Amino acid sequence: MPKDDEITWVMCYNHQSRLIVGDFVVGGTMQKAKNVYWQHGRITRQDRERLNGHKGATIWLTGLSGSGKTTVAVMLEERLYQRGCRAIVLDGDNVRHGLNKDLSFSRDDREENIRRISELAKLLTTKGIISITAFISPYTTDRHNARALQEKGDFIEVYLNCPLTECERRDPKGLYKRARAGELKEFTGVDDPYEVPDDAEVIIDTWRDEPDACVDKIIKYLEDNGIL
Amino acid sequence: MPKDDEITWVMCYNHQSRLIVGDFVVGGTMQKAKNVYWQHGRITRQDRERLNGHKGATIWLTGLSGSGKTTVAVMLEERLYQRGCRAIVLDGDNVRHGLNKDLSFSRDDREENIRRISELAKLLTTKGIISITAFISPYTTDRHNARALQEKGDFIEVYLNCPLTECERRDPKGLYKRARAGELKEFTGVDDPYEVPDDAEVIIDTWRDEPDACVDKIIKYLEDNGIL
Repeated sequence: MPKDDEITWVMCYNHQSRLIVGDFVVGGTMQKAKNVYWQHGRITRQDRERLNGHKGATIWLTGLSGSGKTTVAVMLEERLYQRGCRAIVLDGDNVRHGLNKDLSFSRDDREENIRRISELAKLLTTKGIISITAFISPYTTDRHNARALQEKGDFIEVYLNCPLTECERRDPKGLYKRARAGELKEFTGVDDPYEVPDDAEVIIDTWRDEPDACVDKIIKYLEDNGIL
Repeated sequence: MPKDDEITWVMCYNHQSRLIVGDFVVGGTMQKAKNVYWQHGRITRQDRERLNGHKGATIWLTGLSGSGKTTVAVMLEERLYQRGCRAIVLDGDNVRHGLNKDLSFSRDDREENIRRISELAKLLTTKGIISITAFISPYTTDRHNARALQEKGDFIEVYLNCPLTECERRDPKGLYKRARAGELKEFTGVDDPYEVPDDAEVIIDTWRDEPDACVDKIIKYLEDNGIL
């Protein structure tokens, strides 16, 4: 939620105002609509967290294709549910069927895809929900932007450490094979970089440990840091 | 959630595939990304609804500027919270500070604004949450599209019935005055139409009844229809 001093308050509300005097910025992305108020509800984040019995947070999984993001995300969601927590997986592929179905895989659209997910994750966090995102999210800049939207401690980056050779050996969808054959372009790890995080809160070794053990490690972090 | 026969399954996953053979459509909007799977979690909507003690739903408020949408939305959210329900207000102005901050008030962007909110509302519904949207949403087509995304019974349209003369008399933000002075263009009710819904599940007379009584009527609908 933007603080009062981060936004410009413009006292008009209209579909197509002629009084727009210049763009202004909230956070990292240009906000195009100038004629908007910030509305406050009566139920605070703390109210919601009290009701849920845990804090809101975003668990941002990042790693190569085949490193196990979806497996870990789905298992983590289940474990949190079993503890009575409100947790929602935001999966890149799923979201592209709905909210982001207008986006292609062009460079601009990939960036916009991550931006919207980052905003959605933040919205859920502020509503006392634990969101679990499962994207390759290969670029440091995109992950930094997602983190910058949220309060300190709310954004928990989890790096799924798995060497390219192992991901390629698994190749569950046959994609590496096709990328090597030149059928897929700009494939992360093959002809597009994966920038390994240097500020991840949790690193899980999915090349070695069972998914259950990896999820244990994330749960322990959440417990140790007062989320659960 | 799209059903299996509503989507085209394409067996590739890539940032910029060369194998794209044509656009296809999921629901009303063109889906640009062809190389996506639908991922299934282990926790069903019914699991979540059991945990929450109520069903997921979208309460779509629609009415003129000044008809009381935000007042009703905030009060309804509070009443639902007091009953232990998970409810989230999606307010047009608020969302424009985050998810939709890239959108202007051009005609295309207004349509995209409503489309994203519709998708977000649907996502929350399927996660067992009650979303309350507070937009003018003046066009029947946009409201129909929002409804069409959801399962029967999940989308509850609430029309805030308040004559233009009364909204204009209240004019809490001084906007009607400015619209009449020609400072604001395409203002709903002044020089842009509001299409009164003919299929709203609930009509509340905000010109006459107190907000509390209006919220009572919505709550009763939710009870009578098994949401609560």
